[in-house]
Amino acid sequence: MVEVSPRDGLQNEDVLLSTDDKVALISSLAAAGLRRIEATSFVHPKRVPQMADAEAVAARLPRGQVSWIGLVLNERGLDRAIAAGLDEVNVVVVATDTFSTRNQGVTTAEGIAAWQRIAVRAKDAGLRTTVTIAAAFGCPFEGEVPVSRVREVVAGCLQARPDELALADTIGVGVPAQVRALAGVAASEAPGVPLRWHFHNTRNTGYANALTAAELAGDSPVALDSSAGGIGGCPFAPDATGNIATEDLLYLLGRSGYDVGVDVSALLPVARRLGDQLGHEVPGQLSRAGLFPLGSAVR
Amino acid sequence: MVEVSPRDGLQNEDVLLSTDDKVALISSLAAAGLRRIEATSFVHPKRVPQMADAEAVAARLPRGQVSWIGLVLNERGLDRAIAAGLDEVNVVVVATDTFSTRNQGVTTAEGIAAWQRIAVRAKDAGLRTTVTIAAAFGCPFEGEVPVSRVREVVAGCLQARPDELALADTIGVGVPAQVRALAGVAASEAPGVPLRWHFHNTRNTGYANALTAAELAGDSPVALDSSAGGIGGCPFAPDATGNIATEDLLYLLGRSGYDVGVDVSALLPVARRLGDQLGHEVPGQLSRAGLFPLGSAVR
Repeated sequence: MVEVSPRDGLQNEDVLLSTDDKVALISSLAAAGLRRIEATSFVHPKRVPQMADAEAVAARLPRGQVSWIGLVLNERGLDRAIAAGLDEVNVVVVATDTFSTRNQGVTTAEGIAAWQRIAVRAKDAGLRTTVTIAAAFGCPFEGEVPVSRVREVVAGCLQARPDELALADTIGVGVPAQVRALAGVAASEAPGVPLRWHFHNTRNTGYANALTAAELAGDSPVALDSSAGGIGGCPFAPDATGNIATEDLLYLLGRSGYDVGVDVSALLPVARRLGDQLGHEVPGQLSRAGLFPLGSAVR
Repeated sequence: MVEVSPRDGLQNEDVLLSTDDKVALISSLAAAGLRRIEATSFVHPKRVPQMADAEAVAARLPRGQVSWIGLVLNERGLDRAIAAGLDEVNVVVVATDTFSTRNQGVTTAEGIAAWQRIAVRAKDAGLRTTVTIAAAFGCPFEGEVPVSRVREVVAGCLQARPDELALADTIGVGVPAQVRALAGVAASEAPGVPLRWHFHNTRNTGYANALTAAELAGDSPVALDSSAGGIGGCPFAPDATGNIATEDLLYLLGRSGYDVGVDVSALLPVARRLGDQLGHEVPGQLSRAGLFPLGSAVR
């Protein structure tokens, strides 16, 4: 489980949380047992004002049990992540040129080149690296993204030997058949590289995708991104919901026989508090529906 | 696809729709290509005031292309369904005694006996019959429902030779592993009997369950219940959502390679209108997020 509510969650919410509130959120996530947390992103504060306090948040992260991740898009971001003392960087490469250019001002090929430079320097600095292929399941501008395109992008990224390869359904259009197809791409292009998946529930397919990814992994290491409460909208569908919710995913996995060592009951009040702070009901449903059997703690 | 918004959807909403609005809803569902629609339930109007106009709705159903289903719980309900000229009856037997007694005033065994009497008379009247095992995935009072219990209930119901066996996750607690287990029960206890599944998305597991049921069926006939907009709450979790949404399910199935012959783009305005009429956003997400690729009609 990789918890992304402090980053991808809050980044896509209209309400800005204070640094104090962010640190309180992060602490409660760690207390529930989450051991990898994407705490912030080191991007331009004018582009993403929700993350303008990245250094202030990083300075207050409780060190020790949790591996703290920072999202970076370029070497400037990497410099900040290193200076802030994070454990991992997550570098995003967008699978389509149109989306990449609009989102990051570079083509996909330029994004791959930037990742390769970042990877070398991050490793030198002792940080673990993840490269995330964004829009791998579909692009808001170009539409369908051929599996062959994802294969090319993965191959280009793999040259820099990431510690982890993430495949992201950035706009929440994917279905399990696509998870299977892209898992096949990863198996052939990146054998032995641990996989990570990033799903949005924009069209109610995110949980089926996540379970499929877990099932496909079998005994191989696999990471699933999720966000407490499912917070984080979709900039390309303003009324739509965002990430899959950590507590709902834990319920699904726990009841399916996976033991992920996180106390889901501790996350329900976290999700409710986020809803209060953000001024809207969170899309995650477990915090309203409750655990089953009633009173149980699916761990 | 079995469309249940006029029955299970509206039955669990606080706002009562007029008969005119119900008929307009039903007509738009039929126009979108849905060919089995659970139009109403013939239950006591004091218990379920939302369905008090069952006969009035039934009298205005456009006959011809659609098989119209009425839910009944006893012989009095069957009499009404026959008189109203419906094509099918759906008879509910609750898998646990506590839930059965609280919901229908009879034990499970008494419910099975009632179903058996109804089945004989329904067939004599030329109606197709479905027996639905409610709370097959979990009970709001008794908690876990052992697979062996569902097996006993299915075996008891099968003696009356239903045209279809439905397994219902009435309170939305199930996961795909349970779908597989119960599909196994059906395969051994009811070989050759077409299966139907009824999922709620109360804890965000409904779509994964539905896709699993479709995949398990292979080339065998299978029916999936869903509700336009995903309307219909959960009486045991008042703030929670209800049925899986027809348009979101169609998106998932369509993008997974299933052709179900329904025009999902025609359902998006139906879902939005339901939200306006019921005074709250519908839980189905496709009507907000939109189709993908943008502008496409996943059929």
